[in-house]
Amino acid sequence: MSVDSATLDLTETSITEAVQNTFAGTRDDRARELFVNLVRHLHDFIREVGLTGDEWFTAVDFLERVGHASGPTRQEFVLLSDILGASVLVDLIDHPHGRTAATESTLLGPFFVEGRPSVPNGTDISGGVPGTPLFFGGAVVDEAGAPVPGVRVDTWHSDGEGRYDVQQAERLHDRLAMRALLTTDEHGRFRYRSIAPQYYPVPTDGPCGEILRAADRSPMRPEHIHFRFHADGFDPLITMLFRAGDPYIDNDAVFGVRHSLITEFVTHDAGSTAPDGTVMNVPFQTVDRTFVLTAAR
Amino acid sequence: MSVDSATLDLTETSITEAVQNTFAGTRDDRARELFVNLVRHLHDFIREVGLTGDEWFTAVDFLERVGHASGPTRQEFVLLSDILGASVLVDLIDHPHGRTAATESTLLGPFFVEGRPSVPNGTDISGGVPGTPLFFGGAVVDEAGAPVPGVRVDTWHSDGEGRYDVQQAERLHDRLAMRALLTTDEHGRFRYRSIAPQYYPVPTDGPCGEILRAADRSPMRPEHIHFRFHADGFDPLITMLFRAGDPYIDNDAVFGVRHSLITEFVTHDAGSTAPDGTVMNVPFQTVDRTFVLTAAR
Repeated sequence: MSVDSATLDLTETSITEAVQNTFAGTRDDRARELFVNLVRHLHDFIREVGLTGDEWFTAVDFLERVGHASGPTRQEFVLLSDILGASVLVDLIDHPHGRTAATESTLLGPFFVEGRPSVPNGTDISGGVPGTPLFFGGAVVDEAGAPVPGVRVDTWHSDGEGRYDVQQAERLHDRLAMRALLTTDEHGRFRYRSIAPQYYPVPTDGPCGEILRAADRSPMRPEHIHFRFHADGFDPLITMLFRAGDPYIDNDAVFGVRHSLITEFVTHDAGSTAPDGTVMNVPFQTVDRTFVLTAAR
Repeated sequence: MSVDSATLDLTETSITEAVQNTFAGTRDDRARELFVNLVRHLHDFIREVGLTGDEWFTAVDFLERVGHASGPTRQEFVLLSDILGASVLVDLIDHPHGRTAATESTLLGPFFVEGRPSVPNGTDISGGVPGTPLFFGGAVVDEAGAPVPGVRVDTWHSDGEGRYDVQQAERLHDRLAMRALLTTDEHGRFRYRSIAPQYYPVPTDGPCGEILRAADRSPMRPEHIHFRFHADGFDPLITMLFRAGDPYIDNDAVFGVRHSLITEFVTHDAGSTAPDGTVMNVPFQTVDRTFVLTAAR
């Protein structure tokens, strides 16, 4: 049964309770709480700023364009949430930081892609994109330090000019590159070869770019590699590693950097031996890091 | 110059000011006010409800789908604003009601279409859609009661089954119908023939329908005809006329009904003479109404 509510001749103040009342019949308690609070905050915002009809049109048009810019390989609504600090705030609420030995989480970002290839450890995942070779070696342990085998590990990152594969679909003929799904071995370890990423601007050619330009905000993100971990019996972990010494480390456009996630990206001269035993005839980088998962709540 | 801001190791509370600080460099004062307040209300909402990562994903996916459902003939973001009461609230703030003799405004709704035909007074705008004939006679005056010639008058409405033209594009072969742009004559009058509309549910086949179903809310809108008036020297007016006696008059899904906009839709028997002089061999309706515009502020 729909809740009967008087909706006639509402005023600037009476409308909020009238709209909230229409959500009284929501069967799911949590959904009702979200709807009722959303209406209150949305209406408070509109009243406090005295939103005009023209501003409302601009907002509706903006949101529609964010929607049209969004798709399987470009998450413009995620980016909007990111640049408004909402993504990191949700992560901070969802994953209280610093209370356990677990690796800190941070935001997913707009470049995660479902259709990434599943590859064995040691694979070169650069997809032929040129750049400085980078050898990543990871270990996954529980809070007691015991290795966790069989963890599904997503990784994705930019190229040496700060561009993800999905941002250069034409050049790559829609091939995915610099991303993969790996699995930790019996020692809880995973490893891959790729190329070194670079700091980069978040995409500014879509609607979110208009906000950054209007606010004269820096679009830059410090250099980083994304990771997502899934394992039975453990909480999922979404995080990034940031390169120590990056010039944007203290001014991330999407507010995601944490001291505990800043990691050395070690540079080696040409002629050195890579972790996979190859004697490299060009300079390369290595990154090694242990990730700590929390047992499922 | 972008504003330098510390964004490292933000907490659930420190993040709000950090994000607001990134908007300090916004050149337009009003835009800065809107951004700063938006961030505060968005973050307060997320904190107060303790939004989870899963709920955030659901919200991002929902907004993306609202965007994809939106286009030139379907304004799903407008509908979202409508069912959350935001559209009427903005209208109430923008157009203080009851303080002048002007006709009260109400929301635009999701079915306004830019490409509507411009037609002379007296035109049958039904576009061949079958239904009970309706003859509309309007007058536009200023607050002193003097007629206003040359007013551009948009009108649009549903058919007798509550469907707009754009909701039956296949049946109508994408023709627009039951909508037109007219102009008031030297006596400030406009008139057209069409068919009687009907109460109807707002579209529930898109993402907004999920909200209405989750909340067990009525999707119904009482029968109405939309109008939009533009004239040099006057404030634009967006409004609707609602049929007196409609069963949904006190329970409008989008909160738009005002007593002052409830109007008699008069039914006439077959054999009566229509306002254009035609002796009608079927029953028909007439609606007459004077609209009062406010001089431009």
